[in-house]
Amino acid sequence: MRIKIINPNTCKEMTESIAKVVVNYAAPGTEIVVTNPKSGPFTIDSLYDEALSLKGVLEEIKSGIADKYDGFIIACFNDPGLFAARELSIAPVVGIAEASFFAACMLGYRFSILSNLNSEEAAMWELVKRYGIESRCASVRPAGVEVLDCENDRTAVKNALIQAGRLAIKKDRAEVLCLGCAGMVNLDKDLEIELGVPVIDPVVAALKAIEGLISCGKKTSKILSFRLPKSKDS
Amino acid sequence: MRIKIINPNTCKEMTESIAKVVVNYAAPGTEIVVTNPKSGPFTIDSLYDEALSLKGVLEEIKSGIADKYDGFIIACFNDPGLFAARELSIAPVVGIAEASFFAACMLGYRFSILSNLNSEEAAMWELVKRYGIESRCASVRPAGVEVLDCENDRTAVKNALIQAGRLAIKKDRAEVLCLGCAGMVNLDKDLEIELGVPVIDPVVAALKAIEGLISCGKKTSKILSFRLPKSKDS
Amino acid sequence: MRIKIINPNTCKEMTESIAKVVVNYAAPGTEIVVTNPKSGPFTIDSLYDEALSLKGVLEEIKSGIADKYDGFIIACFNDPGLFAARELSIAPVVGIAEASFFAACMLGYRFSILSNLNSEEAAMWELVKRYGIESRCASVRPAGVEVLDCENDRTAVKNALIQAGRLAIKKDRAEVLCLGCAGMVNLDKDLEIELGVPVIDPVVAALKAIEGLISCGKKTSKILSFRLPKSKDS
Amino acid sequence: MRIKIINPNTCKEMTESIAKVVVNYAAPGTEIVVTNPKSGPFTIDSLYDEALSLKGVLEEIKSGIADKYDGFIIACFNDPGLFAARELSIAPVVGIAEASFFAACMLGYRFSILSNLNSEEAAMWELVKRYGIESRCASVRPAGVEVLDCENDRTAVKNALIQAGRLAIKKDRAEVLCLGCAGMVNLDKDLEIELGVPVIDPVVAALKAIEGLISCGKKTSKILSFRLPKSKDS
Amino acid sequence: MRIKIINPNTCKEMTESIAKVVVNYAAPGTEIVVTNPKSGPFTIDSLYDEALSLKGVLEEIKSGIADKYDGFIIACFNDPGLFAARELSIAPVVGIAEASFFAACMLGYRFSILSNLNSEEAAMWELVKRYGIESRCASVRPAGVEVLDCENDRTAVKNALIQAGRLAIKKDRAEVLCLGCAGMVNLDKDLEIELGVPVIDPVVAALKAIEGLISCGKKTSKILSFRLPKSKDS
Amino acid sequence: MRIKIINPNTCKEMTESIAKVVVNYAAPGTEIVVTNPKSGPFTIDSLYDEALSLKGVLEEIKSGIADKYDGFIIACFNDPGLFAARELSIAPVVGIAEASFFAACMLGYRFSILSNLNSEEAAMWELVKRYGIESRCASVRPAGVEVLDCENDRTAVKNALIQAGRLAIKKDRAEVLCLGCAGMVNLDKDLEIELGVPVIDPVVAALKAIEGLISCGKKTSKILSFRLPKSKDS
Repeated sequence: MRIKIINPNTCKEMTESIAKVVVNYAAPGTEIVVTNPKSGPFTIDSLYDEALSLKGVLEEIKSGIADKYDGFIIACFNDPGLFAARELSIAPVVGIAEASFFAACMLGYRFSILSNLNSEEAAMWELVKRYGIESRCASVRPAGVEVLDCENDRTAVKNALIQAGRLAIKKDRAEVLCLGCAGMVNLDKDLEIELGVPVIDPVVAALKAIEGLISCGKKTSKILSFRLPKSKDS
Repeated sequence: MRIKIINPNTCKEMTESIAKVVVNYAAPGTEIVVTNPKSGPFTIDSLYDEALSLKGVLEEIKSGIADKYDGFIIACFNDPGLFAARELSIAPVVGIAEASFFAACMLGYRFSILSNLNSEEAAMWELVKRYGIESRCASVRPAGVEVLDCENDRTAVKNALIQAGRLAIKKDRAEVLCLGCAGMVNLDKDLEIELGVPVIDPVVAALKAIEGLISCGKKTSKILSFRLPKSKDS
Repeated sequence: MRIKIINPNTCKEMTESIAKVVVNYAAPGTEIVVTNPKSGPFTIDSLYDEALSLKGVLEEIKSGIADKYDGFIIACFNDPGLFAARELSIAPVVGIAEASFFAACMLGYRFSILSNLNSEEAAMWELVKRYGIESRCASVRPAGVEVLDCENDRTAVKNALIQAGRLAIKKDRAEVLCLGCAGMVNLDKDLEIELGVPVIDPVVAALKAIEGLISCGKKTSKILSFRLPKSKDS
Repeated sequence: MRIKIINPNTCKEMTESIAKVVVNYAAPGTEIVVTNPKSGPFTIDSLYDEALSLKGVLEEIKSGIADKYDGFIIACFNDPGLFAARELSIAPVVGIAEASFFAACMLGYRFSILSNLNSEEAAMWELVKRYGIESRCASVRPAGVEVLDCENDRTAVKNALIQAGRLAIKKDRAEVLCLGCAGMVNLDKDLEIELGVPVIDPVVAALKAIEGLISCGKKTSKILSFRLPKSKDS
Repeated sequence: MRIKIINPNTCKEMTESIAKVVVNYAAPGTEIVVTNPKSGPFTIDSLYDEALSLKGVLEEIKSGIADKYDGFIIACFNDPGLFAARELSIAPVVGIAEASFFAACMLGYRFSILSNLNSEEAAMWELVKRYGIESRCASVRPAGVEVLDCENDRTAVKNALIQAGRLAIKKDRAEVLCLGCAGMVNLDKDLEIELGVPVIDPVVAALKAIEGLISCGKKTSKILSFRLPKSKDS
Repeated sequence: MRIKIINPNTCKEMTESIAKVVVNYAAPGTEIVVTNPKSGPFTIDSLYDEALSLKGVLEEIKSGIADKYDGFIIACFNDPGLFAARELSIAPVVGIAEASFFAACMLGYRFSILSNLNSEEAAMWELVKRYGIESRCASVRPAGVEVLDCENDRTAVKNALIQAGRLAIKKDRAEVLCLGCAGMVNLDKDLEIELGVPVIDPVVAALKAIEGLISCGKKTSKILSFRLPKSKDS
């Protein structure tokens, strides 16, 4: 099975960080390519950045369809372009926020999202509402870090996440935590030791979700919402 | 007061149709420019088209900010890029779906959306959820028409809308109807005569909403969700 | 266009205060009358007061219909009698709470209501639920002031509102504030300067909403919920 | 224990019909007075009628407090003035809609309301939302009868209710039915025989609810929402 | 009328405590038997305990049906087996959580549940969701006591409940409190004196609810969800 | 990795049918045991049957913990005992309803459940509410078959499911279908061919979900809701 993971920003270091981690989690027989668009925002720290990333993400989906990948992962916690990608692709497409929410729900009653910045709270709740599970989300707790910090200063980011996680557990009664940025990849184990609750690495959760869907032969539904768009000159 | 209306697709005929209608509704002293991005999808018939329109929409917002417009309207019923535009702009930005829902709520208990295609139902409900008013939306009723039909075959579109509207009233007990596409501009009066309920032209509703906000001096909140994004090379 | 604004209590000073402010916001060509019922509670500080105000409000609506007004505003933040008034009137009727919520939603992600007394919280949430937008309302924050204080001690009221607003912003992450009483008219600008977020004057928001509806020729839907009531001797 | 049942309209025949029925359901030791306001609408067929009934209802509550009744029932399915009455009274006050919904929830999974007119659907859903139980309400099914018909043409009303009930059971999968008007008193047994599901007489349900609250010594909470209103000259 | 109250655990002292209290609240003519299963968990402090109690509870329902009781109460705040019991029984069955929520809703706007342990919060919210009334529940406040403490150390339990109740009133703005364990029986009056708000004893609330349903001749609906299960050898 | 799948009923044929299918979907290195309790209901066709199955299910969980399984699946669409099993087990436990809902949500916008009997609709909605995703569930469509039919008359069951699926797609606009019974195992491919939409085999979906959780080392959260229950003599 061949899976294409798309990092929606153009920060190659992040693409490589993701690649280094996911390889350890791939099932036998899973072949993974991690890539990023040729152009677009260097990191995604706002809805404006997210909007500008969509063209690149969808081009990666289109080239991945031509290359006959069996499934796709969009590896930014805003799940940018997820529904549009599902229109384009018959092979399944999974967003890392979506996959991490569902994993969290199977491990505890309520989860919190540890996000980068407090400006993202509304966007996070929009995601939770889109996937329908408001009643299972305890809170969004910003760690106060930018996406790039995740690459550049791992220790500071880890400490900020531990602090945010503690508040989520104590004040919001979260039982599971979701790392709210693809750049936080591979911090789950350290946080679990520190905080004593399951912590979801969203890219890994998405990898397991897409492997599952592919291995039982499931495809994206094409009858209504995710019907193939008519091609048009644009 | 100077308002910039952005038609997110690149179909100039639609831009002109909108311009022709809104001028009749402008308050004394309101100066309106209707425009469309230089590049992007010719019409928006899918989430994929919508995603590709965002870059152009936001460029129009940015140039509009430079030109010191007092407010902006995004004139496609998916409200593409609305929240990202609010990040960029201190002047208020209104989406035509949003404005039409609020107008509908002030005229009747439940409204229905008359959309173009049945593939759009999920996207319409996502909008309704985003603005929070699920309990006031009776249904989404597709007229089975593409965006371009709205320009090319007005009579067929009008008849399809009348039929969809009848079902919304009879089966879903809608009391108000929202025209679910900027291309349906100027059909509201004909439908009102035919169907006997208020019918909202979303571009006109948005015009009245933005005029209202501007005339009492209101600006977009800049403290959390719609904070100005950091500039970065992209 | 002729608009009748009904202050549901019988405090003439408040009627005059409202009149003095709204005149500054009226569009060219808008003619406004602000009035109050001949009898009824002097101020509305409870649900009991609100209930007793209904008869007077609806008599003002009826005489306004006879006088062929183009639209009506009910200028108390409980929106007393709004749905009953919509039964009576073909011309649109707008409540100040309703209008301020919709304005707030176009300026930020979540809004808080600054109410008079903490006993009103349930009533405020009932309003929010009625208009459907629970998910956009961050909180109700009482300023601890009675309606009459708004007339008699502007400085104290302003200070109490600033304090309540600070809590709403800091604790509840409100991005926009709605002044929850018609008596708080004209305090929006001062609070905006102090607090740095948009503050909605509900009477002004309602004025802009009704002007918008009238200027595009919209009427109240008469087919189901707001059908004209049969006349009967009572 | 002494209970005052207030019929909010001024139709004495209905007051008497209620009185005749409830006496059969009173617990030993329960003394019931059924009464109606001296003035107000003859029947309540609209929100306008309901609004006009409030003054009379609350006067009956006030005189009932002076007369030291142990509890009050507001016997119109709109529960007019219920929350305002709870402000006035320390003794518990029950609305017949509220009580019938709770009874229905203890007998089946989903209930439908058999209302008088289809114009009332919005008002019925507002009630359901106010009491919080949207997810348990299958539908509102109008019988197409006016309040007065309930007094004047019992057979026609019964047949219309049977027909509406059949639709609720078959189309909406209701398992319990609530008679949506105090005037439908005493029709529950006939409908149960015909339809094979529990049918709630709302006045009787309210009687049992208030008897229960009184007999375990419960009072209305006075700390926030239903605090005693300050007396004022009105 | 003959009512069977089933204490789902096998702690006879608790069964007797319940019996001693309810007898004071029974209406004239009500005959009550309080009993517990022959085997099963000694107390119910977890979902695991609750699961193990079901067999015993349903055997008590079955023998009670054979003994022609007119109604049943399941006297543990998890309402264990309530829906299954409704399948078995034509006579009405009431859970003590359900009955206390409905009583609370008739006395104030929002109620809080005072539970035993903080591990139960999720289970309590599941109950609230099942009965549909999330919007009326302010919070679940654990007193930090085990079920058995309720029998063994009344003073400590009372003090812990007072403290939890104070937080519910002050922080969560609860207006009514529900005692969240059958073992807390008879503490309502003391808490009312201390806290100044209505406090619901759930067993007593259930007694009044079942008396009400029986005395107006209501039965469990048998058409869909609570259809009689086919007998099978198990 | 060693996984224990528990069929909660005592029908060995069904246990074997499940075993035969899941082996084809196991990842390399996954060792699966499918088993059923020694005593309990032969099939689960009611909430009463479900209640009686819990003891056996939880005994299988306990013996599975002693046998050091890495994860558990409860293979009945009611997810009987799921939350109680999560209390007992540190290793993850997945219910087949839960897993199929999440898989469905990643393949289409709205899913329908094809259940056995129409009496189960309430129970299905309770499950959907428990997992939080009401807004993504289009409908529950009963096929009108009993659990045992799934073993004995595959063709009839398949045809009934096709018919129910067609209604779900056409009337409720479902885009994905979930087979609502473990006995419907292995019918997904046939239905997909016939209906043209993804059809989820819930046991297979749960297998993929648990494999995913185990392979990234996730455990059940033990801090609040699913804390280990105290052992007690019962």
